[in-house]
Amino acid sequence: MEQRVSLITLGVSNLARARAFYEALGWTTGAAPGDDVVFFQAGGAVVALWDRARLAADTGVEDAGGWGGITLAHNVRSPAEVDAVLVDAKAAGATIPRAGAETFWGGYSGVFVDPDGHAWEVAHNPHWRLLEDGSVRLP
Amino acid sequence: MEQRVSLITLGVSNLARARAFYEALGWTTGAAPGDDVVFFQAGGAVVALWDRARLAADTGVEDAGGWGGITLAHNVRSPAEVDAVLVDAKAAGATIPRAGAETFWGGYSGVFVDPDGHAWEVAHNPHWRLLEDGSVRLP
Repeated sequence: MEQRVSLITLGVSNLARARAFYEALGWTTGAAPGDDVVFFQAGGAVVALWDRARLAADTGVEDAGGWGGITLAHNVRSPAEVDAVLVDAKAAGATIPRAGAETFWGGYSGVFVDPDGHAWEVAHNPHWRLLEDGSVRLP
Repeated sequence: MEQRVSLITLGVSNLARARAFYEALGWTTGAAPGDDVVFFQAGGAVVALWDRARLAADTGVEDAGGWGGITLAHNVRSPAEVDAVLVDAKAAGATIPRAGAETFWGGYSGVFVDPDGHAWEVAHNPHWRLLEDGSVRLP
């Protein structure tokens, strides 16, 4: 198995609301208005929004609801950019369980949770390289 | 917010077991044996393994356990490669809730679930381009 992730599918209860949330953050999709799945090109991977019950059935897992042990992160170039993304996310309908602040690992981050409960840490990590194209490189 | 994912952190209950699982699939990390977080460079993003309870606390979310509405996918170049990855994953300790088979969207895929319940669809999608470096491109 090669060392990469191709697609991250977020199960959602209301596709139009979820799509509007990510579009409000500036993301764009080629999906048609009536499509039942929405794909966003996200660097070399893809983020998809799809009905959560269908995703659970397709995955072959039980869904008890709630968070499932996966947190996504979006790394940015400065602490100020962390705060700016959190402001935008809140304005788009996210909750902010952790405001931007210095972290125990020497960076600066905060967390937003999207309307379907999917959590994103927004982080400035001075130890990792963030390339021009947005990809990150471990030291 | 730029349209990309930097880091996908998988909460785990036994870090050594989780690390051994992904290493058995051929993934490599620069983490030291005693590190309490394990990072894998995964294309332009990073996959991390970290204690699930600490991840929940750090994220600021309640954790009821189980799957949480996120399924990852790993796209490969042929149906045969889907089956090969599923065989390797099962040998490494995964469960296989859905064996490799043709899908409703015109591809071929199966699903494995890692020892901590994180689900990966392994897919051959003839409609998407899979570049030499493993990144995927929407049509």
